[in-house]
Amino acid sequence: MQAVYNIAEICAQHGITDVVLSPGSRSAPLALAFARHPAFRGRLRVVPDERAAAFIGMGIAQATRRPVVLVCTSGSAGLNYAPAVAEAFFQQIPLLVLTADRPPEWIDQLDGQTIRQQNLYGRHAKGAFEFPVDTSHPDAKWHAERLVNEAINLASAYPQGPVQVNVPLREPFYPKKDEPAHYEADVKIIRDTDYSALNTGPLPGPLHELLAAGRVLIVAGQHPAEVKLEAALRRLSATHGIPVVADVIANVSGEADWSGDAPLGAQNDFALHRQDVFLAGLSGAEKAALRPDLLITFGQSLISKALKLFLRDAAPRQHWHVQASGPVSDTFRRTTEIIRLSPAAFFQGLANAELPPAEAPHNEALQQAWQRADVAAGQMLTSFFGQPAPVFNEFSAFHRALKTLLPHTALHLANSMAVRYANILGIPQGRQIEVFANRGTSGIDGCTSTAVGAALAQPGRPVVLLTGDVAFFYDRNAFWHNYPLPNLRVVLFNNHGGGIFRIIDGPRQQPELDEFFETRQLLTAENTARDFQLRYFPVSSFEELDAALPVFFAAETGAAILEIFTDSKTNAAFFEEYRAAVKAAFA
Amino acid sequence: MQAVYNIAEICAQHGITDVVLSPGSRSAPLALAFARHPAFRGRLRVVPDERAAAFIGMGIAQATRRPVVLVCTSGSAGLNYAPAVAEAFFQQIPLLVLTADRPPEWIDQLDGQTIRQQNLYGRHAKGAFEFPVDTSHPDAKWHAERLVNEAINLASAYPQGPVQVNVPLREPFYPKKDEPAHYEADVKIIRDTDYSALNTGPLPGPLHELLAAGRVLIVAGQHPAEVKLEAALRRLSATHGIPVVADVIANVSGEADWSGDAPLGAQNDFALHRQDVFLAGLSGAEKAALRPDLLITFGQSLISKALKLFLRDAAPRQHWHVQASGPVSDTFRRTTEIIRLSPAAFFQGLANAELPPAEAPHNEALQQAWQRADVAAGQMLTSFFGQPAPVFNEFSAFHRALKTLLPHTALHLANSMAVRYANILGIPQGRQIEVFANRGTSGIDGCTSTAVGAALAQPGRPVVLLTGDVAFFYDRNAFWHNYPLPNLRVVLFNNHGGGIFRIIDGPRQQPELDEFFETRQLLTAENTARDFQLRYFPVSSFEELDAALPVFFAAETGAAILEIFTDSKTNAAFFEEYRAAVKAAFA
Repeated sequence: MQAVYNIAEICAQHGITDVVLSPGSRSAPLALAFARHPAFRGRLRVVPDERAAAFIGMGIAQATRRPVVLVCTSGSAGLNYAPAVAEAFFQQIPLLVLTADRPPEWIDQLDGQTIRQQNLYGRHAKGAFEFPVDTSHPDAKWHAERLVNEAINLASAYPQGPVQVNVPLREPFYPKKDEPAHYEADVKIIRDTDYSALNTGPLPGPLHELLAAGRVLIVAGQHPAEVKLEAALRRLSATHGIPVVADVIANVSGEADWSGDAPLGAQNDFALHRQDVFLAGLSGAEKAALRPDLLITFGQSLISKALKLFLRDAAPRQHWHVQASGPVSDTFRRTTEIIRLSPAAFFQGLANAELPPAEAPHNEALQQAWQRADVAAGQMLTSFFGQPAPVFNEFSAFHRALKTLLPHTALHLANSMAVRYANILGIPQGRQIEVFANRGTSGIDGCTSTAVGAALAQPGRPVVLLTGDVAFFYDRNAFWHNYPLPNLRVVLFNNHGGGIFRIIDGPRQQPELDEFFETRQLLTAENTARDFQLRYFPVSSFEELDAALPVFFAAETGAAILEIFTDSKTNAAFFEEYRAAVKAAFA
Repeated sequence: MQAVYNIAEICAQHGITDVVLSPGSRSAPLALAFARHPAFRGRLRVVPDERAAAFIGMGIAQATRRPVVLVCTSGSAGLNYAPAVAEAFFQQIPLLVLTADRPPEWIDQLDGQTIRQQNLYGRHAKGAFEFPVDTSHPDAKWHAERLVNEAINLASAYPQGPVQVNVPLREPFYPKKDEPAHYEADVKIIRDTDYSALNTGPLPGPLHELLAAGRVLIVAGQHPAEVKLEAALRRLSATHGIPVVADVIANVSGEADWSGDAPLGAQNDFALHRQDVFLAGLSGAEKAALRPDLLITFGQSLISKALKLFLRDAAPRQHWHVQASGPVSDTFRRTTEIIRLSPAAFFQGLANAELPPAEAPHNEALQQAWQRADVAAGQMLTSFFGQPAPVFNEFSAFHRALKTLLPHTALHLANSMAVRYANILGIPQGRQIEVFANRGTSGIDGCTSTAVGAALAQPGRPVVLLTGDVAFFYDRNAFWHNYPLPNLRVVLFNNHGGGIFRIIDGPRQQPELDEFFETRQLLTAENTARDFQLRYFPVSSFEELDAALPVFFAAETGAAILEIFTDSKTNAAFFEEYRAAVKAAFA
């Protein structure tokens, strides 16, 4: 047991504070090790459905920016973690996954709850360690303590991600009655710190020349809010005239600081983010004016399919991707340079660099072209949503819900339509709203659980989930535990099916649309709200929605669901009107 | 598209009839291929939660004894299949898992719903195939058709199991409007048939001698009901005096034929199955009389921990395991011979073998010892449950529910207490009841979905699930689809937590029992029943239970939940009384 207790001690000494446990027999020593350690008091949480538990843990890690420990028992329990582990892998969120196991001699011997747990997540974990089954030998004790350090350091090193430690355990699992827990304070600790930021010099000559040579465009992929990075980009945009284009999940438009230190209402909107609108409206010739010679990107994925297609088609002469380490995707099929530095350090360096005056006109022309398109898209949206919609529909309702968000909200956008609507509409400026979405794998499987994890991790902050009905009912077990969520608000757009299939081209032309794509589902959240004591606001009209929104978002009261009922065919028809309006605005 | 349409054609020509689809964009060509093929009409079912979908598919395969096709889209969808795939792997149930994927050039390029899908299930699938991304070359067409055959044959070959075919698909996903589906009837078909049964001769000499040398015990692990096998075992027991011990999931006590052809009420009870009772009661000396010299086993896992411990301790001189092919577990750490023949063929051969008369007394003494213990255990149970229980509790309620099962029921036992109670109590004889349980991985994650799959596959047969509250609420999405389940009855034992932790030794002695093991959960099934239009019978006393049972099980009406509310501490106390009664009966 001592070696297992020391796992908790090592985690504590590395500054880990949060643990999500799904109970079991084999995992009892791990459960007790964390339950009895003072460092985790009140932050060891029990969630029975492992699928939800892992996404909740990921939501906590996303919010706290620290690794979270997951603990499950042997057998298929760990397989239920797999969707969240893959999402964390691609979204680069640190998780320490402790899977209790039978000892190796009992694998494949038809004993209960026994599967093949070594390297359970395959290529969706950053690494997998096997805890020694017997730690009585001093070398094994060294090995056990060392590998827990290695696992934590690996999960935390850039790019962060999930790491499995499989922990085979022989009986007995339980200490004797009243036997106190003992933690060895002198366990082995290895710290792994990145000091590369101390070593920043001027931009290398060749890069400097390339940068000076032409029209430069910065595109931000999914990225957590970061004050220094945003400041560097703002300066770069202002001083060098370089346009910065960002999807809603890039968090580079003044959404950096939810602590309340930055002033609200500031005009932070230096970044462009209406690309989903204007790239759908502009003609090929007009798009030519937006083409960069040098594309610089950072972060992970983009939501905007229009932007991805534009950049692939635009074929910039150079594409630099800024990423400190790890494998890099060639998202636009044009990557020429991979720059090994953190985006904040790189863009700070760039903002400080003196560029030859020759390049300014090029960049300013490019920036103006992007700004003109963005402003036109903004005017088009204002005009389109300024007039009352002919019928109640989810796109309009989504627009109103977004406008009502409170300052400092952690906004969670579910796949699949919620994140798309938000990327079209943009989020209100000057309110320090931070945006999250499971775009690592783009799954619907854990969107609610992730938001629940965020709400648990930051009880003083409003956490709002905008979601559709399929994602919501898929993951109802996000609420199946005993922790109150007073700061959580779920806005559920219920069109009774996979409405996206009626909106995107392809499925909507097939006779099988109803039965095999959209898949009508009949649930409403009323009984779910009753099951979990959530306040419940059902609305079916603009009047009801407008009346409900302020009460629903009010800061003082407890967790709530606002269920917005719309008709899938009406939604699809209204989205067609929007498409027509975009075409008309840019014609 | 033609190559994808031909997947459906090859499946149809191999006699596959059932498909479970979870909708998506990338998987559209596969969905259309199966939706438009007449062989799957009415048996292509849509279930949005992939975790539930895969267990439902497994339940269908378990009931029909044919491979079932699962179809999902790219990304984390396939990872949600993982728990059911592992269960099917260890329970040896054939599944053809078709995971739609992006083409290989787009993996790891930060495109949405893209993970690393090749060999997604690792060592929990029998095999993994990669469908060619381009089938325009004739060799690629041959490859595509051949590998679908190989995958189906591999899934179907003994030991059966899940096989993945990853299907990378480039756009467009959809045929033109009104473009008819075309299937090539002359696709390549390779059949793989096991003819080894034609080649059975007499038992080899050395085996014959070993068999004649001493006290022989047959122990049956988890196995589907099989008429021929049961007949052979019955003859063997009667003619050679060999005792046959079977857990409730072994299906060797006259539960073989649910078609209604075999007479009901027959005294089929040649097998012994009260080992969980008497092995807990007998002294060491008395157990010595039960020790075999030669242990012969077949099937997969045992539920009875007492039986496993007894056999490990008994240390028979020989342990033969009968299994046609595949890796064999050394469950009792005494395996000496692996016999490569189907259990039915082997036991038929054994029943036909003439054994020297010298062995009969040994065997009969062993058989009588086991029978005496089994009869004593039966009397103990009759006497214990014959007197009214002092308070309402789940073990007594379970006993009453079991007694009320209708003939020909497919009985699904959830992990963790339901399957244990049933193994203690045994199921009513002479009613042709077949027993199923997810003992491949012993997970709680898909017990309800598996029963739902069985109910869909055999609408004319009563399907009863006995389950606890944690397993039930974990897997509520088993009901989240549009298929009626008129023949399904769920008996839900709700003690508001993981009651097992209060019953087994270890956790019940820890101060963390309440919070970190039992984990009180507050749900009842009332709202779930409302959500899915299930008839709902809540009971909290013996009177209410007895009144509800006949109405609940009545054949004509629709799907229903009987929720039996008990108190966890009362249940634990009553189970202690049972333990004391066992000790007293065998003292």
